[in-house]
Amino acid sequence: MRMAAARAAVLLMAWLCAAVAEAKTHHHTWNISYQYKSLDCFEKLAVTINGESPGPTIRATQGDTVVVTVHNKLETENTAIHWHGIRQHNSPWADGTAGVTQCPILPGETFTYRFVVDRPGTYMYHAHYGMQRVAGLDGMLIVSVPEGVVEPFVYDAEHTVLLMDWWNKTVYDQAVGLSSPSFKFVGEPQSLLINGKGVFNCSRLGNGGGGACSMTRPECGWPTLFTAVPGRTYRLRIGSLTSLSSLSFEIEGHTMTVVEADGYYVRPTVVKNLFIYSGETYSVLVTADQDPSRNYWAASHIVSRDPNKTAPGRAIFSYARNDPRALPPTTPPAGPAWDDTGSRINQSNLFVALPGHVEPPPARADRRLLLLNTQNWIGGHLKWAINGVSLSFPATPYLVAMKQGLRSEFDQIPPPDSYDYKNYDISRPPVTNGTVSHPVYRLAIGSVVDLVLQNTIQSNLGFNVSHTHPWHLHGHDMWVLGYGEGKFDPEADGGKLNMRNPVMKNTVVLHPQGWTAVRFRADNPGVWLFHCHLESHVYMGMGVVFEAGVELVPRLPASIIGCGRTKGHHY
Amino acid sequence: MRMAAARAAVLLMAWLCAAVAEAKTHHHTWNISYQYKSLDCFEKLAVTINGESPGPTIRATQGDTVVVTVHNKLETENTAIHWHGIRQHNSPWADGTAGVTQCPILPGETFTYRFVVDRPGTYMYHAHYGMQRVAGLDGMLIVSVPEGVVEPFVYDAEHTVLLMDWWNKTVYDQAVGLSSPSFKFVGEPQSLLINGKGVFNCSRLGNGGGGACSMTRPECGWPTLFTAVPGRTYRLRIGSLTSLSSLSFEIEGHTMTVVEADGYYVRPTVVKNLFIYSGETYSVLVTADQDPSRNYWAASHIVSRDPNKTAPGRAIFSYARNDPRALPPTTPPAGPAWDDTGSRINQSNLFVALPGHVEPPPARADRRLLLLNTQNWIGGHLKWAINGVSLSFPATPYLVAMKQGLRSEFDQIPPPDSYDYKNYDISRPPVTNGTVSHPVYRLAIGSVVDLVLQNTIQSNLGFNVSHTHPWHLHGHDMWVLGYGEGKFDPEADGGKLNMRNPVMKNTVVLHPQGWTAVRFRADNPGVWLFHCHLESHVYMGMGVVFEAGVELVPRLPASIIGCGRTKGHHY
Repeated sequence: MRMAAARAAVLLMAWLCAAVAEAKTHHHTWNISYQYKSLDCFEKLAVTINGESPGPTIRATQGDTVVVTVHNKLETENTAIHWHGIRQHNSPWADGTAGVTQCPILPGETFTYRFVVDRPGTYMYHAHYGMQRVAGLDGMLIVSVPEGVVEPFVYDAEHTVLLMDWWNKTVYDQAVGLSSPSFKFVGEPQSLLINGKGVFNCSRLGNGGGGACSMTRPECGWPTLFTAVPGRTYRLRIGSLTSLSSLSFEIEGHTMTVVEADGYYVRPTVVKNLFIYSGETYSVLVTADQDPSRNYWAASHIVSRDPNKTAPGRAIFSYARNDPRALPPTTPPAGPAWDDTGSRINQSNLFVALPGHVEPPPARADRRLLLLNTQNWIGGHLKWAINGVSLSFPATPYLVAMKQGLRSEFDQIPPPDSYDYKNYDISRPPVTNGTVSHPVYRLAIGSVVDLVLQNTIQSNLGFNVSHTHPWHLHGHDMWVLGYGEGKFDPEADGGKLNMRNPVMKNTVVLHPQGWTAVRFRADNPGVWLFHCHLESHVYMGMGVVFEAGVELVPRLPASIIGCGRTKGHHY
Repeated sequence: MRMAAARAAVLLMAWLCAAVAEAKTHHHTWNISYQYKSLDCFEKLAVTINGESPGPTIRATQGDTVVVTVHNKLETENTAIHWHGIRQHNSPWADGTAGVTQCPILPGETFTYRFVVDRPGTYMYHAHYGMQRVAGLDGMLIVSVPEGVVEPFVYDAEHTVLLMDWWNKTVYDQAVGLSSPSFKFVGEPQSLLINGKGVFNCSRLGNGGGGACSMTRPECGWPTLFTAVPGRTYRLRIGSLTSLSSLSFEIEGHTMTVVEADGYYVRPTVVKNLFIYSGETYSVLVTADQDPSRNYWAASHIVSRDPNKTAPGRAIFSYARNDPRALPPTTPPAGPAWDDTGSRINQSNLFVALPGHVEPPPARADRRLLLLNTQNWIGGHLKWAINGVSLSFPATPYLVAMKQGLRSEFDQIPPPDSYDYKNYDISRPPVTNGTVSHPVYRLAIGSVVDLVLQNTIQSNLGFNVSHTHPWHLHGHDMWVLGYGEGKFDPEADGGKLNMRNPVMKNTVVLHPQGWTAVRFRADNPGVWLFHCHLESHVYMGMGVVFEAGVELVPRLPASIIGCGRTKGHHY
C-alpha cells in the first residue's frame, strides 16, 4: 500500500512538472538527398539528411513539440520518415509510415512533421518507405525529463550509440532480389556501423573494390570515440536500426547496468554484453572504473545469424588524457557465441519494470490474437505471412482510405485472429499457402489486446532454420508478458505470464522456435502498423495493421493525402 | 500551279482515307519494374516494361487511339512516359512529361495514357522523369498510313532499329554525380545498343566484372539480326534514344535511301552512313543487292565525342538462306571520323521536304526567340542555361499550375527573348552568371514563332569544347529553316533561310559552334517542353517551356493532379 502511494506520488510529480514547465517547439529543416558516402570505406550512394548519414540527433524535453520540415531532393524517389517510439497521440498522420499513415513525399515536395514528445526516453527515426531505411536515412531522438524531475539513477554525462548493419550493394539491388521469382537474398551485411562508422576490409573484393573501396578515405577507418573521465559514470543511449542483424554490444573490461528500455525504466540489471534487436533502444550506465592509462574497445557483433562474413562494429571507449587515437592494446572482444539462443532468451527474461515507474498491465485482455509467423511461396514469390496473410502496402494509405471510406483500397474481410494451433506443427509449416493483400484488424477503441507471436521453422530455401524477429508496434507501447520456447499453448502457457512487473516496450523480440506474448491498450485513435523490424522481412510482407477509433481521428491534413485513389481528389 | 494542285489532291486523299477508315483503339497494359538485365553482358538493374528493355513496339494506324495502362511497380520510384513525336492534339495532359504535363505516377498507382496518333510515321516512347530514361524504359511507336493510302516510295518489308547508349553505372550514380558541387560527369557510355543488344568487353574491368560481367550470359553476346531476302527492299525505321551520344549508323556494303524523318517524307536522299541524333527518327530504304552468300555488319558509332571508350553497336544484316548466326567475314566498319563536324552539317543540309507532302512554312514569324546555350556555374553547381536561365522542373507541373492559377509555382517574369548578340563572343561566354528557376515563354495561340538556337564554346571543365545538342519540341513539329556556323546574325542570316522546302521535325540538331533556325506554329493549347534531348543536359537545366492557349485546355483529368501544391487538393 505504501508502495502504491509512493508510485502514485512519483507519477503525479512527473506529470505536474511536465505540465508546468514551458513546452518548447524545436524546428528542424532537412534536405533529403543521395550522396556518396564511404561509411565503411566502400563508397556507395546513401540517402542522407543535410548531407549526412546517420542524420543529426534530435533533442527535446518531455512535452515539447518537434517540427521537422522535410524537403525531398531525391529526384525520382519518394520518402517518408517514421519517429520510432513516439506514439503520436493526437497526430496519427505524423507517424511517417508510407502506405499506412501518409502518402509518400514526392521529389521536389516539402512535408512537415509536427508531433509532441509526451514521454522521456531514447527513441529513433528512420525512413519508412520500401526498403529505403537500408540506404542510411536514420538517426536518434532523445527526449529528456523536464527540469526538476529526478530520474531513478544518476550519471555524469551521456553518449548516443546508434548501431547499424551496412551493405556494399544498393537498396535497389536488395529489393529487386527479394521480390524476384528466383528470390535472391540480400545476404549478410559487409559491416556493422557504430554511429555511422565501420571498416569493411577492401581486400575482400578481388580487385580491391575497383576504386570504390579504399581504406584511406578520410571519412573511413577511424572508429567513433566515446570519451570518459576516470571514475565518472556515463549513460549510453543505445539504439539499433539494423536491417537484418541481431546484435550483441559490449565494452571491453566494463560491465553495463541496463536502466531503460524503449523509453521505460527497468530494474537496474548488470550485463557484460547487451543483446539488442533492430528497433530497440536501451540506456546503460557504464562507470569508467578500469585502468585509465589505456583505451578500450566497444564492439558490436552479429548473433542469431552466421557472423563470419561481416566485419564487426568497433568503437573506442577512451579514457580522458589518453591519446584518443591510441588503439587499445588488446584484441577486440570476440563477442558471444552467435548461435547460443538460450543466452539471449535468458537476457530477455532478465528485464522487468522498475517498480513504481511503469504502470502495471490490465488484469485481463478483451481479445487475443495468435499470430503465426511463416515463410510461404505465394504466387511464385517468397513471402512472410501472418496467419497466412502477407502484408502489401496499398497505394492509398490505410488511414486515408479508412477515414474517407474508400473500402476498395483495403481488405473488407479481416485476417484470422488465430490459427489451428492444436493441430499445427511449427517445425513443419506448409510452404505454399497464403495470400498477399491489404489486411486490417479492427480493434475496439480502448480495448485491451493480447498478441502472441508464434515462430516456426522455415525450410523454403533448403535448410531448416528459425529466425529472430523483432516486432515493432506503432502508436503504442506493449507490456511484455513473456517469452517461451516451442508452441504457445493458451491453456498451459496463458497462466504463466508476468502480470506483476512486465517491461513496456515498442519493440519486442521473437526468438527462434519460440513465442512472445504482449498486451497493449488500443487507446490511440488511428491506423497503426505492427511488423517485423527487419527491413527485408517487412518488405516481404511480415506485418499486420491495426485500426482503432479511426472515426475519432479529426479531419486529416491535406498534406498526407494525394496518392492512389486520392490522387487529384479533395476530401 | 500544277504542283500545288497535285499536292492538295494528295493531302485531301490522305485525309479522306484517314477519316473514312474505321479508327481502332489499341490497348496495352504495362508493368514497370526494375529487373536485372545484361544487355551488353554487364549485369545491372534496368527499368523494364513487362520485364523487357527496350519495351514492346507499339503499332497503330493513323487516326487510331492508343491506350496504355501503366502500373508502376518500382517500389519507391515514380515514373512518367512520354510519347515522343505524338503531338497530343486535344490531350495535352497525356504528353507524359513529369513536371510539365503531369504529376508522376507513384509506386502502386495505375495511370492510363490515351491519345490519338494523327500522323503516320516513326515515333518512340520513353521515361520522362529525372534521368530515368537512362535506365532503359523506352521503345518504338510505329504509325502506319491507312489502308489504301500509298506512300511515296515502295518497299517489301520493314525492320525497326532502336539505337541507345548504355552505362555500367546506375542512373542514381549518374544523377548524383551531375548534381554534386564537385560535378562528376557521367562519362562516355560503355557500349552502344542496337535493339537492346550490345557487347561490353568484360575484360576491361580489372577483375572481369566481379561476377556482374560475363560474356556467356544467355541474353548477351549475339547481336540483333535483320533478315533480308536477296533483291528485296527493306524499310528500316531507325530511332535514336541515346542519353549522350550522337551516332552514325551504316550497313556494310549497302547504301541507304533516306525517305522519312520524324514522321515527314523527305526528298529521297542516298547516304552511306546516317548521322542520327538523340530524339530523331528516320526511315531508310535498303535493297539487298549485294553478294547474298554472306552476311553484313550493321553498326552504330559515336560521333562528336571521343568514341574510344565505347564498344560500337553491332547488328547483322543477314541474307536469307545464310546461317543467320554466321558472322560477316569482314572487320566491322570503323565509322566516319568522329570529329568531322563538317560532314555532319553537310548531311543535315541534305534533307529537304518531299514536294507535295509537307506543308510549306508560313512566310513570316510573329515572334523570334534567340536562345543562347551556355554552360554556367550557378550556385556552386554546373548547369546548362538558355539566355541565362537554367530550367528546374517544379513540384507542381506547369500545366496544372497554369490551368489552376497557382502563380507561385512558376516564374511570373518571362525569360529573355534574346541575348545581347551584337556584343557577345560565343567562343568566350562567361561561366558564372545565370539563375535556376521555373521559366515559361507565353506564346499567343496560333502565332508563328521562330527559334534560333545558338551554340557556344564551354571552358568550364578546363578545355574548350562545343557540344552537339539535339533539341526536341513537345506537342508540335518545326520547319527546319537552316543550320549555320558561328554566330547567327539576324540581319545577315535571316534572309538565307530555306523557306521553300524545309523538312518538318520534332527534333533538330544544334551543331558545335553553330546555330539552328526553326519555325513553328503555336497552335496546340497546352504547356510544352523544348529541350536538349541528351539526358544529362536536360537534367542540368537545358530546356525551356512554352505555354500557348492554356485557357483553351478543357478541365484537366484528376489523374494528372496531386503533387506539389495540388497534393491532397481538388480542382
